[in-house]
Amino acid sequence: MNMLDTTHGIAINGQRLWQSLMDLAKIGATPKGGNARLALTALDGQGRDLVVGWMKDAGLDIRVDQVGNIFGRRAGRNNALPPVMTGSHIDTQPTGGKFDGCYGVMAGLEVMRTLNERGVQTEAPLELIIWTNEEGSRFLPVMMGSGVFTGRFTLDTALDARDSEGKSVRDELKAIGYAGTEPVGGPVGAYFEAHIEQGPVLEAEHKTIGAVTGSLGVRWYDVTVTGMEMHAGPTPMSVRKDALVAACELVQVVIRIANDNLPHGRGTVGVLNVHPSSRNVVPGRVDFTVDLRHIDAETLDAMDQRLRESFAAIAQRHRVGLDLRLAQYNKPTPFAPELVDMVRQSAVRRGLPAMDIVTGAGHDAVHMAMVHPTAMIFVPCKDGVSHNEIEDAQPEHLEAGCNVLLDAMLTRAGTAR
Amino acid sequence: MNMLDTTHGIAINGQRLWQSLMDLAKIGATPKGGNARLALTALDGQGRDLVVGWMKDAGLDIRVDQVGNIFGRRAGRNNALPPVMTGSHIDTQPTGGKFDGCYGVMAGLEVMRTLNERGVQTEAPLELIIWTNEEGSRFLPVMMGSGVFTGRFTLDTALDARDSEGKSVRDELKAIGYAGTEPVGGPVGAYFEAHIEQGPVLEAEHKTIGAVTGSLGVRWYDVTVTGMEMHAGPTPMSVRKDALVAACELVQVVIRIANDNLPHGRGTVGVLNVHPSSRNVVPGRVDFTVDLRHIDAETLDAMDQRLRESFAAIAQRHRVGLDLRLAQYNKPTPFAPELVDMVRQSAVRRGLPAMDIVTGAGHDAVHMAMVHPTAMIFVPCKDGVSHNEIEDAQPEHLEAGCNVLLDAMLTRAGTAR
Repeated sequence: MNMLDTTHGIAINGQRLWQSLMDLAKIGATPKGGNARLALTALDGQGRDLVVGWMKDAGLDIRVDQVGNIFGRRAGRNNALPPVMTGSHIDTQPTGGKFDGCYGVMAGLEVMRTLNERGVQTEAPLELIIWTNEEGSRFLPVMMGSGVFTGRFTLDTALDARDSEGKSVRDELKAIGYAGTEPVGGPVGAYFEAHIEQGPVLEAEHKTIGAVTGSLGVRWYDVTVTGMEMHAGPTPMSVRKDALVAACELVQVVIRIANDNLPHGRGTVGVLNVHPSSRNVVPGRVDFTVDLRHIDAETLDAMDQRLRESFAAIAQRHRVGLDLRLAQYNKPTPFAPELVDMVRQSAVRRGLPAMDIVTGAGHDAVHMAMVHPTAMIFVPCKDGVSHNEIEDAQPEHLEAGCNVLLDAMLTRAGTAR
Repeated sequence: MNMLDTTHGIAINGQRLWQSLMDLAKIGATPKGGNARLALTALDGQGRDLVVGWMKDAGLDIRVDQVGNIFGRRAGRNNALPPVMTGSHIDTQPTGGKFDGCYGVMAGLEVMRTLNERGVQTEAPLELIIWTNEEGSRFLPVMMGSGVFTGRFTLDTALDARDSEGKSVRDELKAIGYAGTEPVGGPVGAYFEAHIEQGPVLEAEHKTIGAVTGSLGVRWYDVTVTGMEMHAGPTPMSVRKDALVAACELVQVVIRIANDNLPHGRGTVGVLNVHPSSRNVVPGRVDFTVDLRHIDAETLDAMDQRLRESFAAIAQRHRVGLDLRLAQYNKPTPFAPELVDMVRQSAVRRGLPAMDIVTGAGHDAVHMAMVHPTAMIFVPCKDGVSHNEIEDAQPEHLEAGCNVLLDAMLTRAGTAR
């Protein structure tokens, strides 16, 4: 029995997938081996033209919607069924890599090519999507195309967005020829997105496939601790109100709350500023941020509650002022269990080392999961590095993830050979 | 029995002392009630002229040395004895107060005036000193006049110092008429300096007199903690190398070392910078400063040793890199026990609430103490605030400190009425 050929009897062409990724990466290539193809620039237009050409070569029926999302449809036996979709984005960070986003689109294309070669007809139609402006490096909001598609914000919000030079999404879509006429949105049977992990877990655990069970909820806070600024020499320890000493204990609480809610708890203090910031002055004020995450909404609420109680108690003990402000809250977004299970099962049948994982980073799939059945497939990336020109991934991992995508899509769409 | 008149039978005139302080404070007065009379400016020259006039009125024999220090001598019965000296400085910070330095000079002047009124002759001669450029706001090194007097650095180092406009001490001394011809240095029988505390201890302890037993030694360090910069979302707690979390524990060690060496231990982290300082990025590097102080050199050495060992152990446990660099070391400077005891005894005999205290800030007396018998008398200042226009002190505290100065100087010089 060939382990690569046990599900639906077919496997994708890993060499062709890799070649397409490398060909796309020539557009906007950077000296250090990365990509600079910012959303709706001329280079993004060239990238879109190249991939749309490949999609047409694969017999896909192309539509472009009013926010510039590109859909390539492969008809099924029953075209009244909602399509089983896959995709991602091909815009990049200013110093981005070759795989973030592009892998999801190229994997979807490779699935289509493989089905064509094998003459596979699916019950439900399939669609390959290229979402507009996922990165948000040039225009905000981020994950723009999927945001409008899922009703997170309006079409006008997206089209009116302007870059730092004052150019609008509306005008730049026209400039590159992707101001489509199709209304944004429509029926979705399922949405799968393959992506590099952008984290270190799969590599550390020696797993090839991550079955993503959902997206972590996030609570962001801004915190100010107010003590009293005093000279470090003449001021004895007992009379001090040292804002930094109190803040250090608060930082440790953040970490403890995360560690008490493993494996999916996260706690980070990424910014911490000390005032007046002088070597021989006891800090009078410290401003810092808190980032708390968890996959379960109730747990994240409990983490929030514990944070507030612990912070208040510590501030009181240190006789310092405390101001804790919630800056942002994004709910956890679970993915569709039946689709996640299709990913798991494919990995098992193909003998691929796999594990459940969550996504801490944002993806178009997170928008989709809020309204449609959604799952993601993660593959390892080198050292967990992404949003960086040195972003790298192994061809055999990309191939494996694409095979899992193939299996999951066929399972969901139904095959009729 | 009049409590104010129990030692040597005399007491100073508190009202006259206060009036002289207020008169001097008119030169370079600031809108918020402070003083801006930077060293060797025209205003400093005006201040010197005013005080030298008062010194001459008090019959003092004036000398100016080559670094601009002013000496006003009151002959004793035996002028072969080294003089018993007192003094301080009258230059200020750019937004300084009316008492820092000026109090020590005016208190010395008031002692001379009182002895004249009472017709007291001392065995040893007395001298009142105005030191050049104690603050160092305009020219470095700080505590310049006493530094040359005690051989901490050379006369040329002082005279060649330039301000931000390129003007030299040498030229500015000439410009205000205080480029003296006397060699710098000479015999010293004792040096007493009265000063506001510039800290909160006496006020908090409801004491009027601080008998200063010495100056804290200081060890300054620069520390770099190197972890790994990672995304806060995708990176599980267990694989992180969070430089800030490690740094927080190091900050706590600094505090613990100080608290384990009370009452004279001090530990401060005044500067702490986080990199890359992004809300959703685990800190990859933290740079911070450490300030450790103690009055006893061996204890300060032991604190240093413990700091190094604890830091290394914590860095290892957190799997982060550690670079600990000693930036500066100033040894503790004990004051002369027999002079400190004269201060204590005077307070007791006058019924003044007093306590032993150390100085964490630098003073000309610290330079003097390195080579000559020295003591200081502290009086409270409001809220411990100094180097600020709102610096304030109570007339009755200033009067009390001046009486203690009188007593100590008479005891040391010997009286012959």
